[in-house]
Amino acid sequence: MYSQLKQRVLEANLQLPKYGLVTFTWGNVSEFDRENGVIAIKPSGVEYSDMTAEDIVVVDIDGNVVEGNLNPSSDTATHLELYKAFPEIGGIVHTHSRSATIWAQAGIDIPALGTTHADYFYGDIPCTRKLSNREISEEYEKNTGLVIIEEFVQRSIEPMAVPSVIVAGHAPFSWGKDANDAVHNAVVLEEVSAMALATRSLNSGIKIQPELSDKHYLRKHGENAYYGQH
Amino acid sequence: MYSQLKQRVLEANLQLPKYGLVTFTWGNVSEFDRENGVIAIKPSGVEYSDMTAEDIVVVDIDGNVVEGNLNPSSDTATHLELYKAFPEIGGIVHTHSRSATIWAQAGIDIPALGTTHADYFYGDIPCTRKLSNREISEEYEKNTGLVIIEEFVQRSIEPMAVPSVIVAGHAPFSWGKDANDAVHNAVVLEEVSAMALATRSLNSGIKIQPELSDKHYLRKHGENAYYGQH
Amino acid sequence: MYSQLKQRVLEANLQLPKYGLVTFTWGNVSEFDRENGVIAIKPSGVEYSDMTAEDIVVVDIDGNVVEGNLNPSSDTATHLELYKAFPEIGGIVHTHSRSATIWAQAGIDIPALGTTHADYFYGDIPCTRKLSNREISEEYEKNTGLVIIEEFVQRSIEPMAVPSVIVAGHAPFSWGKDANDAVHNAVVLEEVSAMALATRSLNSGIKIQPELSDKHYLRKHGENAYYGQH
Amino acid sequence: MYSQLKQRVLEANLQLPKYGLVTFTWGNVSEFDRENGVIAIKPSGVEYSDMTAEDIVVVDIDGNVVEGNLNPSSDTATHLELYKAFPEIGGIVHTHSRSATIWAQAGIDIPALGTTHADYFYGDIPCTRKLSNREISEEYEKNTGLVIIEEFVQRSIEPMAVPSVIVAGHAPFSWGKDANDAVHNAVVLEEVSAMALATRSLNSGIKIQPELSDKHYLRKHGENAYYGQH
Repeated sequence: MYSQLKQRVLEANLQLPKYGLVTFTWGNVSEFDRENGVIAIKPSGVEYSDMTAEDIVVVDIDGNVVEGNLNPSSDTATHLELYKAFPEIGGIVHTHSRSATIWAQAGIDIPALGTTHADYFYGDIPCTRKLSNREISEEYEKNTGLVIIEEFVQRSIEPMAVPSVIVAGHAPFSWGKDANDAVHNAVVLEEVSAMALATRSLNSGIKIQPELSDKHYLRKHGENAYYGQH
Repeated sequence: MYSQLKQRVLEANLQLPKYGLVTFTWGNVSEFDRENGVIAIKPSGVEYSDMTAEDIVVVDIDGNVVEGNLNPSSDTATHLELYKAFPEIGGIVHTHSRSATIWAQAGIDIPALGTTHADYFYGDIPCTRKLSNREISEEYEKNTGLVIIEEFVQRSIEPMAVPSVIVAGHAPFSWGKDANDAVHNAVVLEEVSAMALATRSLNSGIKIQPELSDKHYLRKHGENAYYGQH
Repeated sequence: MYSQLKQRVLEANLQLPKYGLVTFTWGNVSEFDRENGVIAIKPSGVEYSDMTAEDIVVVDIDGNVVEGNLNPSSDTATHLELYKAFPEIGGIVHTHSRSATIWAQAGIDIPALGTTHADYFYGDIPCTRKLSNREISEEYEKNTGLVIIEEFVQRSIEPMAVPSVIVAGHAPFSWGKDANDAVHNAVVLEEVSAMALATRSLNSGIKIQPELSDKHYLRKHGENAYYGQH
Repeated sequence: MYSQLKQRVLEANLQLPKYGLVTFTWGNVSEFDRENGVIAIKPSGVEYSDMTAEDIVVVDIDGNVVEGNLNPSSDTATHLELYKAFPEIGGIVHTHSRSATIWAQAGIDIPALGTTHADYFYGDIPCTRKLSNREISEEYEKNTGLVIIEEFVQRSIEPMAVPSVIVAGHAPFSWGKDANDAVHNAVVLEEVSAMALATRSLNSGIKIQPELSDKHYLRKHGENAYYGQH
């Protein structure tokens, strides 16, 4: 029934190995069809090379399976919380891509250090606080979503202005207007994470000029954007 | 006679260059058929591109060649000791994969720093003590197995809970329920080793929360696991 | 009308993903046909895999579109300033290649540390000063060109002797006698940037011997060159 | 006339881009046919993708061209000195492979830190002293050979026991019993150089145990070797 949605989500998932963001079955992409109230997401633990559109699982916003024979990704509850809290977003991706995960493991925000970052992310990419022991032991995946949301609310960050987060001790989540856009942001996140690692080791105190960050972000986003074929 | 076993071991060996874990003929994979008491292992010094199932050598638990015309891997004696001491394991892989070897050369345990590690390894991945001069000069490969076993016994580590080790000054060994599973763990070992290197240089004191390690390991392993299509 | 020029510029642009210098649509190459007073340049935000010679935009030295239906690269104004100031150059490339961008973000000149560098760059590769807030807010891309030129003038560097620059907080520009030569220099820039990062971390005070720099640069360039098939 | 020799040298040269050791036309491999007193070597500045066996240049031990229409590699004089001083060697390769070049630029010996190194190199890989200004300005390539030889003589290193060197401020040379063996050693050199960089940053004082170095080198080399299919 949701064959186009499932096909798009399949293709977005297959971009993860193509861009070198995943090992084995790690990582998952979903897309939210807000009109029909359903989310299509990768099944849990299935190899990318074997995956077909039929394997993509369709769930409702409470996580009930609407279509599909496989278990949805074990991270589904995280996706659902983000879709509920961030109404602008239509796609989410979770990976353990190497450089972003390094920053997550270190528990440090990925600092905005140049225009590559500013072209996509309007400011530092936040690292969440650690989850409490109770948040880990009960409804862990849901709570992972909640600490992400908490971080964006407390810091007053617009989700579409900084479309990625790293979860302390864990790994990144990225999002976008749809599944394909979320993967695009995940690729950029990995690149800026790698650049930031070496930049900080060369010059530990460096930050981007705020005006340069504004310029690059706003020439690509918002009503005065002039990058691309608009 | 052991054509299926040899085919599986061939295929597992061919995964090593595919995943970038070996240079030239470095590395070797074996599988133990416990029912028949025989181990199939890569021949010593043969190119992966030329290797056929016929080249795989079958030995008994004392290392006597049962089938095959080539010399078995020079590391066979290490494999045999591990199979004797760790009854749960059915496959072993030895590589000099870059990041894991770096930790081995440094002589430092690979610390558990995030969920990527915790998904596969329940705690730090141990580095053995150095071998004594006598252990090196006599029965070196057998003694390499014995110091690995000593490390797991002294630290009370379950071999299947931490299915890899690094040998000081040398390189890693990984294992699993069969040859394919051992290679899978060797790939993950290399990835978490690379992540740990950069994580520690960003934040030298960081460790994973124990509760997060428990959560991730146990959602994939044991009777309450809920990852994948069980 | 400018079909050969556009074809050359297309091919030079397609070398960027081939050599791993760009992600997505990042990066752009142009070539200046000085005889006809026109510059061919990559269109803004078009995928490399979809790009045809027809998509390449031809502009005059003031940036007016002479041929083509798409918007030229948003960095066109930077290219134009460089062509006006540096009469020896016929091709320009801009990328966010990882290692060169790391030096740009750190705001540090890329030091000449070995003969790989000296074969192509006669001395350190300069990092520009930061742009002022006004230079960023008004005619940003033009001003990016002007700070590059300022750096070469103030330090008395010959543009063809050091055919690359890094812009502080941003990324590199490279140039050459034509589009293809500019890309060639961009590839070398990335390689020497990567080497310099690790060299400085091993030995923070090291510099190349001036005589060795002279020797390597001059055996490949100028009237006494003896490298290659002259 | 020397068609087999030229074919072997062509194939050895083509392995350089295959193993990721060179960019563009950088790097060169030669082989010495000691019986006929001729050396076949890569022509200077020719693209690997265009190179044929016909392009390989044959010179005598004084560097006079015996066969071929192109200029031999600009590094030919270095090769000739090494062949004259080291009678055991039959092939030489010069590259600017990234990690080995980093050590050369830093001017630091590549330390023996593990068995990967010990399997091929019996001790540290020496970095030469800097050339004097006169050695650079006159007969530079010949003098590069002479400082390499000086280093091996002064330190009493057997060329076949440590079949690589790094030239200070420049890059590595490797050798072997023939062209193919020299390239093999160049690949290993690059791998151990990369491992040593990160090992030293994790544990700055570490060295391999001498007994472990002996064991690994001698199980692959000399009359008691037992690695491979002997």
